[in-house]
Amino acid sequence: MEIKEIYDLYKDYLDKEIVVKGWIRKHRKQKEIGFIDISDGTCFKKLQVVYDKDLSDFDIIQKIHFGSAVEVKGILQTKEDAIELKATEVKVIGDCAEDYPIQPKKHTKEFLREQAYLRPRTTLFQAVFRVRSVVSMAIHEYFQSHGFIYLHAPIFTASDCEGAGEMFQVTTQELDKIAKDGKLDYSDDFFKKKVGLSVSTQFEAETFAQSFSKVYTFGPTFRADHSNTPYHAAEFWQIEPEVAFCDLARIMDIAEDVLKFVIKYALEHAKEELEYLDEYEEKGLIEKLETTIKQEFKRVTYKECIEILQKEEIEWEFKPAYGADIAKEHEKYLTEYFGCPIFITMWKKELKSFYMKQMDDGTVASADLELPGIGETFGMSQREDDYEKLLDRMKELDMKTEDYEWYLKLRKYGTCERSGFGIGFERLLMYITGIKNIRDVIPYPRTYGSCEY
Amino acid sequence: MEIKEIYDLYKDYLDKEIVVKGWIRKHRKQKEIGFIDISDGTCFKKLQVVYDKDLSDFDIIQKIHFGSAVEVKGILQTKEDAIELKATEVKVIGDCAEDYPIQPKKHTKEFLREQAYLRPRTTLFQAVFRVRSVVSMAIHEYFQSHGFIYLHAPIFTASDCEGAGEMFQVTTQELDKIAKDGKLDYSDDFFKKKVGLSVSTQFEAETFAQSFSKVYTFGPTFRADHSNTPYHAAEFWQIEPEVAFCDLARIMDIAEDVLKFVIKYALEHAKEELEYLDEYEEKGLIEKLETTIKQEFKRVTYKECIEILQKEEIEWEFKPAYGADIAKEHEKYLTEYFGCPIFITMWKKELKSFYMKQMDDGTVASADLELPGIGETFGMSQREDDYEKLLDRMKELDMKTEDYEWYLKLRKYGTCERSGFGIGFERLLMYITGIKNIRDVIPYPRTYGSCEY
Repeated sequence: MEIKEIYDLYKDYLDKEIVVKGWIRKHRKQKEIGFIDISDGTCFKKLQVVYDKDLSDFDIIQKIHFGSAVEVKGILQTKEDAIELKATEVKVIGDCAEDYPIQPKKHTKEFLREQAYLRPRTTLFQAVFRVRSVVSMAIHEYFQSHGFIYLHAPIFTASDCEGAGEMFQVTTQELDKIAKDGKLDYSDDFFKKKVGLSVSTQFEAETFAQSFSKVYTFGPTFRADHSNTPYHAAEFWQIEPEVAFCDLARIMDIAEDVLKFVIKYALEHAKEELEYLDEYEEKGLIEKLETTIKQEFKRVTYKECIEILQKEEIEWEFKPAYGADIAKEHEKYLTEYFGCPIFITMWKKELKSFYMKQMDDGTVASADLELPGIGETFGMSQREDDYEKLLDRMKELDMKTEDYEWYLKLRKYGTCERSGFGIGFERLLMYITGIKNIRDVIPYPRTYGSCEY
Repeated sequence: MEIKEIYDLYKDYLDKEIVVKGWIRKHRKQKEIGFIDISDGTCFKKLQVVYDKDLSDFDIIQKIHFGSAVEVKGILQTKEDAIELKATEVKVIGDCAEDYPIQPKKHTKEFLREQAYLRPRTTLFQAVFRVRSVVSMAIHEYFQSHGFIYLHAPIFTASDCEGAGEMFQVTTQELDKIAKDGKLDYSDDFFKKKVGLSVSTQFEAETFAQSFSKVYTFGPTFRADHSNTPYHAAEFWQIEPEVAFCDLARIMDIAEDVLKFVIKYALEHAKEELEYLDEYEEKGLIEKLETTIKQEFKRVTYKECIEILQKEEIEWEFKPAYGADIAKEHEKYLTEYFGCPIFITMWKKELKSFYMKQMDDGTVASADLELPGIGETFGMSQREDDYEKLLDRMKELDMKTEDYEWYLKLRKYGTCERSGFGIGFERLLMYITGIKNIRDVIPYPRTYGSCEY
């Protein structure tokens, strides 16, 4: 039986013989008795097995190594409000060698990162990766139940959305050979041309939004970002919804709704995991999440934010100025100032991407959702739907307009008001789990200079 | 209002004025009256708008181009069991230029592939990509409701699962510069070493299965496969479940269960789309799908299959022989012979991957699920759980065992019986939609020599 089943249905199995398979996560040995905590990962809880001298192989069982896979036969019983399995037989399925790097003690997160293939066995990463799975499902539940079409946008791309200089190139040419031959010829390459990894699925999502009205993507994106911070990874998952016949105000409503839905879903489906994280990773985590659901998010213009920041007599590292970006320290200050998640809206156009809808006052219809303690998590905008204005802006920025031909043409063939946003999935997870380093919410993190396993 | 809402709630809105936004998918003009079919993509059905001479701008409305985005105000009414919107106002939101490549006539699929950014607007691709979205959700529903943990396995990998020679390399080095300098130095590269794109997530899934018992991945994988066939793409999505304490028989049960669940889900959630595909793409599609759900899949050994094939007096392109692979023509014959999906089990070990569980008779505990009309769709096996046997097999095959150190170690640290399978998502979609070319079930297909948009 799975341990989840045992907890779900324990009343049906009390005083009955059952068989469980799992891994030893704790083994306490006393003279006449022993206790084994078994986990099979089907639920967050472990099952306590108790065995005693009545078993003929008591001494052998006492020697079973931490980390081994075992099969336990026994009688399910309750003991002080908890359930435990009184073993009648304990068999080793797979021994765990003595050089096992994980030991029944506290390991640092840095150490566990080096053991990425083993760390999901620890209680902490059982919690984190269960939450990751639950939150992924919450994303799909939200969008599917609201009529959005899920689109698998391509990873390989011959165009470059915003990623100038941050794009990974893919090739099937032998680099050694290029060096040896001293020449480069794309006719040898798989796609016969230069191809990179997508940094955003927005453009493809726009093409689908102009067909299905409401669409979303959810997949990996790639940025060759050299930043070595707790917030940056070279490979990360992104959710990019795109909605036709939708202005900035409505896309902010949707963004707020998504965040609240996802948090509520996590609280319902991963309560024990979040309680654990509340206790060991971020005190007050659950209260923070419950507050987020109840709060109405503030919407403040970029201009107002700069004014607030300038009023304060604080020694900023980056001096706030109209026309300058809002730095991490400012984001932190602002979310604390308002005491809730905030949308910073209507940025100066020079600070944002070319495709955002231009207003008459030099701003664009854009908004960043800033979460307390984590900063920007969702970025959104109404898209420029006017062919000429978009073209002009691209020319202003000296972009190669011929590379964007089909993107531009969307504005010629049945254009409409449309908006969308992007969610950095890992940053969302950091907010929900309280984990402070992006490397600890990704199963196998890839960062500058690091691609292990 | 969204068109889906109108159909769902039409009784509440009959004889009332409503406003709809969408795109013109058909425009029939008569002297005194006009009919516009509008789609907003929120449901498969279009909404018929009728307008007549009573409208002062009747002549202007008649000139609105096919493909334009419009806003229609009108009174909802029923007409011969159908509903239609009697327009009081028709406004153009976004005109559609005259050079619009999609016209209200039948286009070939080849032509539409060249217009990949516009083809989702056609009825056919509305059907296909809606089914793709529905089936994706079905996958998540199945695994989540059965207690599987969803794992995002890494795309970037420094190891090479099965992909020898079929792997794309990623780099941030300028290839031009390598050619110019005539030397290659990985210290300049993002990861400081050679890194490729994952061809399978199985190994990472195994590490998680040994922690959570039941896990699945669902994400893009990449193979630099030069095959130019209707079944191969360089970028495709794969689902790879992995289950601990699970033998081959049980993993076949799960695979069969997944397929039936997904088909049932598609029939429930995309009925109109499948009816359309039944009519225009594969006659008898729905009957085929309904039969698949009801049938018990056959399990036949590889040896039995070869014997069946050898008995037949057929001019095979590839002569069936014990020890040789089973070709596409054989797969086709066998599924017809048995009249149902079949698992071909217990392949000779030379035909399969090194990680499969070795039996005493020279076979491995493996199975391929063959679907009628499409061939191999799921591949599965019990994994070799014995450290020494796995190591020996790798040495036999002259593999660099040091590259697989952590994979091997899974067999030292609490190993157990475990099995898993891989589903080619696009092939599954081809079976469900009746679409015959993989390029037509992928939003933006990437194949040998082709990476457009």
